[in-house]
Amino acid sequence: MPELDTTAAAPIAIDLSADCVDITRAICDIESVSGNEKSLADAIQVALSGFAHLEIIRDGDCVVARTDLGRAQRVVIAGHLDTVPVNGNLPTRFETVDGRDYLWGRGTVDMKAGVAVQLKLAAELIAPVVDITWIWYDHEEVSADLNGLGRLAAGHPELFVGDFAILGEPSNGHVEGGCNGNLRVELRARGVRAHSARGWVGENAIHKISPILERLAAYEPRQVEVEGLVYREGLNAVGVAGGVAGNVIPDEAMVHVNYRFAPSRSVAEAVEHLRELFPEFEFAVVDQAEGARPGLDARLAREFVAAVGAEARPKYGWTDVARFSALGIPAVNFGPGDPLKAHADDERVELLQIAQTERALRAWLSGR
Amino acid sequence: MPELDTTAAAPIAIDLSADCVDITRAICDIESVSGNEKSLADAIQVALSGFAHLEIIRDGDCVVARTDLGRAQRVVIAGHLDTVPVNGNLPTRFETVDGRDYLWGRGTVDMKAGVAVQLKLAAELIAPVVDITWIWYDHEEVSADLNGLGRLAAGHPELFVGDFAILGEPSNGHVEGGCNGNLRVELRARGVRAHSARGWVGENAIHKISPILERLAAYEPRQVEVEGLVYREGLNAVGVAGGVAGNVIPDEAMVHVNYRFAPSRSVAEAVEHLRELFPEFEFAVVDQAEGARPGLDARLAREFVAAVGAEARPKYGWTDVARFSALGIPAVNFGPGDPLKAHADDERVELLQIAQTERALRAWLSGR
Repeated sequence: MPELDTTAAAPIAIDLSADCVDITRAICDIESVSGNEKSLADAIQVALSGFAHLEIIRDGDCVVARTDLGRAQRVVIAGHLDTVPVNGNLPTRFETVDGRDYLWGRGTVDMKAGVAVQLKLAAELIAPVVDITWIWYDHEEVSADLNGLGRLAAGHPELFVGDFAILGEPSNGHVEGGCNGNLRVELRARGVRAHSARGWVGENAIHKISPILERLAAYEPRQVEVEGLVYREGLNAVGVAGGVAGNVIPDEAMVHVNYRFAPSRSVAEAVEHLRELFPEFEFAVVDQAEGARPGLDARLAREFVAAVGAEARPKYGWTDVARFSALGIPAVNFGPGDPLKAHADDERVELLQIAQTERALRAWLSGR
Repeated sequence: MPELDTTAAAPIAIDLSADCVDITRAICDIESVSGNEKSLADAIQVALSGFAHLEIIRDGDCVVARTDLGRAQRVVIAGHLDTVPVNGNLPTRFETVDGRDYLWGRGTVDMKAGVAVQLKLAAELIAPVVDITWIWYDHEEVSADLNGLGRLAAGHPELFVGDFAILGEPSNGHVEGGCNGNLRVELRARGVRAHSARGWVGENAIHKISPILERLAAYEPRQVEVEGLVYREGLNAVGVAGGVAGNVIPDEAMVHVNYRFAPSRSVAEAVEHLRELFPEFEFAVVDQAEGARPGLDARLAREFVAAVGAEARPKYGWTDVARFSALGIPAVNFGPGDPLKAHADDERVELLQIAQTERALRAWLSGR
């Protein structure tokens, strides 16, 4: 393994023999807002360095731990180390709400409970039935070009060889497969500016966008079955703008449209669909991301879903599973925590979900 | 007459025995952007002070000159002294375009050529067939609460007694009667904010404004005959706004609507009309101004139109004639200059129009 930076303070110790709840708490209390993951990455590198069954690779603030047992199949299991900014919700504390026990605080849901389960299993599963590549990475909560998983995939493609991938993002302990694609376009209409006292001299660009809103309001989004999961699409105006002054016929108006589309459709096909819906308008793509097929027809994926006894659901938001999908690796989200509590000021993970996730993942990886 | 401020520089001399073109040039070269009318008002006060047939009243930067000949009828003739900001278009110069002679520069059209004609006639018409109240006022080109004519009407209602009023605003030498009313409202729709990956959880407020734009686009504005003139109405979106972020279903959207309505309709009726058009939306009036009936069925008005041999037309934009209309005095615009050149950087008045306007007004006021 690489040398640690001995000029820095000694890494904080994480005791991987503790139970997953305590590990979750320990790593949540090491603040790691995006860009500040180093202390946590150092602590993880040290905590895993004593285990002979793991090869450790450090790349920036990514830590990779691999088994190399000569198994027929390899599973990649990944989680991000960073959180969104703290907002008075660290250090963590335990709380009980409606008779259920929670760990409260930034990162508990998104996604250090998932990371804690992964760390515990990385340390303890010395003879899993598949080879495992564990990846913990930085900069997931910020713009895509900073994403540590993307950087690692570009620089070390050999670490991304695998038959199946599991991201530990919060999914309430369900298996969420694939994700919708995402497209944003700006549609524009032009007119002719004039004084509104003589409006007939001009052409009102705002009136011209009326058909765009009409079609959006009437649009019935598809529900598309892809590899056994039903993806619900969405087509929405997320912005509208136009106007020069209270006495001027406007010469330009814009509708900002967001299309979330099932992973059976490519970005190119999504663009084509919108062009056909709005053929008479200026059209500019401002953001695009391919979706990810759930891959739940792959044998390992089917076995995983069956083994963990979870319900498979589609993922609607775009996640890093799309990066594995783009590499041809079937990938799912499977982690403790309610996604609705991610990024919330009252972010909190139910302790029961941590234990259930650990048990399910341990059983499957152990071949039980 | 009131004392001049003797601590200030002596007023610039205006020679009212010169012809109207030269008077126009002289008063244009006394820069009087709104708020800076004092030098010009002082010069006018001095220039008119030698004429025994005129009573001079000074109020701020308003100058009033009245005859009191005991005539059966009184006409109020008014013009504003201020201009929009200079933009490299002073001092004035003469130029010839396509064989026509112009005076070029700020204020030549809006509206010092009209003021020059008024000053010349105020000085020379010692025995008009009607009594005349000449009013030159400040702050017409800025917000209505600063308007000198409004201030004078509030402080000196006795100066606004009259049977007919003429504003010398540029009208290409045509008689423009009355003006449309003006109403601006903001229409709002509300929704429920949600992440656009799960848009069905929310309610899209932008989609909800679709019927507003639909109705505006389909709306057929009326053409309404009022006292012999046909007023063309207008109903336009002059602004549209909505949107939180590229991944958020917006919970609010607004359309800013401008309604220009014939002077046979009151503001209250205009508001009612829009409420009926858009009954299901939040409705806020943000600006309102009553229109002005042309009053061309009044005897003096009919005689004036016939005498100056001009075509009577409706005025679409709101002007100070509405202030007279509100006082029950029929009022028209009649002045030299093309309104399309008002406020333009190449503002210029055709010399021929100055002479024609002077001749027409002089003849009518002299009873010829």
